Amino acid sequence: MTMDQNTATPSSTPLVEQDLPVLLQIPGHFGETPFYLTKSMLGGQEIEIAGGEISDKVGKPVAAPHTHEVPEIYLLLSPEPGGAVIEVNADGELYELTSPATMLIPTGTVHHFVTKKAVPGSYCLGILLTGDKSVAVG
Amino acid sequence: MTMDQNTATPSSTPLVEQDLPVLLQIPGHFGETPFYLTKSMLGGQEIEIAGGEISDKVGKPVAAPHTHEVPEIYLLLSPEPGGAVIEVNADGELYELTSPATMLIPTGTVHHFVTKKAVPGSYCLGILLTGDKSVAVG
Repeated sequence: MTMDQNTATPSSTPLVEQDLPVLLQIPGHFGETPFYLTKSMLGGQEIEIAGGEISDKVGKPVAAPHTHEVPEIYLLLSPEPGGAVIEVNADGELYELTSPATMLIPTGTVHHFVTKKAVPGSYCLGILLTGDKSVAVG
Repeated sequence: MTMDQNTATPSSTPLVEQDLPVLLQIPGHFGETPFYLTKSMLGGQEIEIAGGEISDKVGKPVAAPHTHEVPEIYLLLSPEPGGAVIEVNADGELYELTSPATMLIPTGTVHHFVTKKAVPGSYCLGILLTGDKSVAVG
């Protein structure tokens, strides 16, 4: 294995981020989006993590249909199985996810979701695979 | 950018995993560990996601000190800020994380954590960066 794909030296010591989330404006989202990990944190990692608790988001989409230049993984969690349900629209197809669930949103897929049910302590996270090497850029 | 690092063709269609978590035995962990994403899911992605809700884990470590061959990112969440506190031991150094927080556990770091406080709806996730290209293997 060669090392020539690396643009940064990985940290060999543990790093902590505490002043979270940071609020960022990203295309398609109605308001600022909470991020728990961005490319500038923890020494520069190959994922970004956005989202949060959704029990106050039932019936209230947080974003209009939008795309990303990298794959995204949705992670839907709740304290007990079935505690959260979201309806994802991906390129016009509807997918109902019941917690716990994960979903791959491939690069370029037009997507958004609506929360249908969410008990307190339910989360929907979007993990952006910013280090994905399969993306043909430029 | 060349494509020659890819070992799999990325899925161009959305994929969903619903029968979660899967329980896996991993070195150092006392019991089976819940996984929400493994390398065999969603077409084969560059991360794995383990962990879960921790409100019943206060004072009960889920693992003995152990290492991984890839970097790991801890993500600590709770419905309200400060709802969860964990103490991470990483190569003998103690780090107290208060939710929301993230932490990088570099490859090879001897680590484990103990939950100090966790209101219902608190989660500690371990995201394994299995696609990390900085790891010198073999």
